[in-house]
Amino acid sequence: MTPTPGPDAGLLLAGTRIVEVSSFVAVPLAGMTLGQLGADVTRVDPIGGAADYHRWPLTDDGESLYWASLNKGKRSLAANFRDPEAQALIADLIVDAGILVTNAAGRDWLDHDTLAARRPDLVHVQLLGRADGGAAVDYTVNAAMGFPLATGPVGVSAPVNHLLPAWDVAAGLYMALAVAAAVRRRDATGLGARIVLPLEDVALATVGNLGYLAEAQFGGPDRERLGTAVYGTFGTDVVTSDGARFMLVALTPRHFADLTALTGTTDAVKSLETALGVDFRDEGTRFRHRDTLSGLIRSWFLEHTAVEAAEALAASSVLHERYRTFRELAADPMVTDNPMFSVLDQPRIGPHLAPGLPMAIDGRREAPRPAPANGDDTAAVLAERLGLSADRLTDLTARGIVKVSAPTAQKDAR
Amino acid sequence: MTPTPGPDAGLLLAGTRIVEVSSFVAVPLAGMTLGQLGADVTRVDPIGGAADYHRWPLTDDGESLYWASLNKGKRSLAANFRDPEAQALIADLIVDAGILVTNAAGRDWLDHDTLAARRPDLVHVQLLGRADGGAAVDYTVNAAMGFPLATGPVGVSAPVNHLLPAWDVAAGLYMALAVAAAVRRRDATGLGARIVLPLEDVALATVGNLGYLAEAQFGGPDRERLGTAVYGTFGTDVVTSDGARFMLVALTPRHFADLTALTGTTDAVKSLETALGVDFRDEGTRFRHRDTLSGLIRSWFLEHTAVEAAEALAASSVLHERYRTFRELAADPMVTDNPMFSVLDQPRIGPHLAPGLPMAIDGRREAPRPAPANGDDTAAVLAERLGLSADRLTDLTARGIVKVSAPTAQKDAR
Repeated sequence: MTPTPGPDAGLLLAGTRIVEVSSFVAVPLAGMTLGQLGADVTRVDPIGGAADYHRWPLTDDGESLYWASLNKGKRSLAANFRDPEAQALIADLIVDAGILVTNAAGRDWLDHDTLAARRPDLVHVQLLGRADGGAAVDYTVNAAMGFPLATGPVGVSAPVNHLLPAWDVAAGLYMALAVAAAVRRRDATGLGARIVLPLEDVALATVGNLGYLAEAQFGGPDRERLGTAVYGTFGTDVVTSDGARFMLVALTPRHFADLTALTGTTDAVKSLETALGVDFRDEGTRFRHRDTLSGLIRSWFLEHTAVEAAEALAASSVLHERYRTFRELAADPMVTDNPMFSVLDQPRIGPHLAPGLPMAIDGRREAPRPAPANGDDTAAVLAERLGLSADRLTDLTARGIVKVSAPTAQKDAR
Repeated sequence: MTPTPGPDAGLLLAGTRIVEVSSFVAVPLAGMTLGQLGADVTRVDPIGGAADYHRWPLTDDGESLYWASLNKGKRSLAANFRDPEAQALIADLIVDAGILVTNAAGRDWLDHDTLAARRPDLVHVQLLGRADGGAAVDYTVNAAMGFPLATGPVGVSAPVNHLLPAWDVAAGLYMALAVAAAVRRRDATGLGARIVLPLEDVALATVGNLGYLAEAQFGGPDRERLGTAVYGTFGTDVVTSDGARFMLVALTPRHFADLTALTGTTDAVKSLETALGVDFRDEGTRFRHRDTLSGLIRSWFLEHTAVEAAEALAASSVLHERYRTFRELAADPMVTDNPMFSVLDQPRIGPHLAPGLPMAIDGRREAPRPAPANGDDTAAVLAERLGLSADRLTDLTARGIVKVSAPTAQKDAR
């Protein structure tokens, strides 16, 4: 098959069409990311939305900021998933698009074999909880991965769960990668692909790839909680006289020399080296003596303001960053002056700064596009892709098989 | 350009060649992942290894389990980066491969424009710390992202840093995706790509995509620490009579009904609903009353063993998982009976279970391949890709411009 550049050959995935049947984080992130790379993504949902459509945080009007943020730039088709006629229409759309990304389970009309029988070059990518088909979500998968029992302040014994759904994010990106690579093979060979991606395996592979499983297999002890220290090198948080907190990391001898110079502890650190018979140019040695070194370094920060600390750190090679709350971050130049962000006038929610793809491609950044409301594009997608007539759409809508959004002022505002 | 299927058209990226100039987590993960999808990846390092080559955890012999785990299946070429002749050879390799992934900074011989002048269809993907070129690592980026001040036990005020380098993992996967998508466009159009991916922007985009920045912009309060509760729905950890811990999540009314049935709290929960005038079928309501509901539910677990709890949970719809340490995980059937893992006989380290790619493609899983030692493949790569003669290699080695590994028993063991 010869790949056909789409209307905008400038985008890496221009000309690809994707149907997404999804909920929550991983698959919506995959679909959105592929859309940011140029794919035409239609999210297909039950009428009224999937289980994630009203997930917190909400606006005062009950609109989900979570859903709107994870579904930017997609089209939305709403149908009654229990109705065979709706199922057939969705299957037709998938066959037309040639790519399905989904975390739907137990819907045999979405199975690879059923759909690939109609389109052999289908790219079918399914996220499961576990490889055996069992249910799992980020917060349960995470419990098994070792991190919650090794994260957090020294001395804590209870598990510390991450707030960032890191496994969902990784799974969504693995899924997007699987689609792009499978499309590349399809373009080259005409072959479709059936890809199954268990969330649990994404987490397990990552724990393994980072060396934790090898360490345990070769008899390493379980990791102790380190607070803000960084395993095997030097890292610590510090507090300034006015209560700001910074994270500092000294990976190299130069970083560490700069840090001791900045804090006026060079002589003290040298004396310590002599007394202990160690060499702090070695990062493992810095790690072993982290409490002593952190104690020395923190004193300077307690006697200086955040502004003074930021200036001194900026003039050094020390890796550093100030801790921010989400509110502080949203108002920070890191967001407000960042070309990745632009004002998105999101219907039903309002204008706000939203991110595009975190990469510049050939110097270009694509602005984020609004998320649809449930069923916003039902009519357009069915007419455009399947050639359905206005009469047929009216009939399907009247019988509750699909939902088309009303042509309201909201819609016009887009 | 017509894409040419490689020797193994079964792998999605067969026939692609990648040069990686990297260190630490993100770019090595990108290269390894692309290799797992079929790309031929050569990691090019300074003689003796980059700054990550001896990173903890180490074996008793000083070999890095971290490095070996993040560089599986690659070839290694070692050269003196300060030598112009070595720089020219590496540039030749990149021009030959047509794809560079790197987090190197300040090396103008690796710049896009320099290399693309010689190969216009080059795919050049560079990870930066910050978009302005400033240095940043996962642990400093994370400090700004809001999560450390909202993660961890209720009542803690100090920042809680993640142990999982989640931003590095996400950046590595974004990078792999960028390569696959750019190769797809190059196959279709003949165009190369220049892609710049700042680690800080990966984190910021993710915070935005998950709704946190929108929430803050629309006046939401800063998130309070929730311990193991799950924002907007019901989640909690529980402890059994024998000290095991489980994470439980009830996303749906059915999950929650099963959980109250399992713990014998159905009547108590109903009475509570009546007394408070609320409906716990609503997940937001379950979240608001999380402390009360967690308290009720935890009592049953304190009176039952881990085995009893696991059996009861497995017979229910409740999403659940037992907390494990890294050592427990490494010995668990989740790893030892998982087809994603296979025994990897890693030279210099020994046989252990290592993960492959966390996805089955057309029902296939590729076994993990060993990581090289620094310079293991210098001679092979230079001969094969650039046609260097044995004499030239001997001369380059004698002058310290490249390093070839000695033909030792270690090498034979592979």
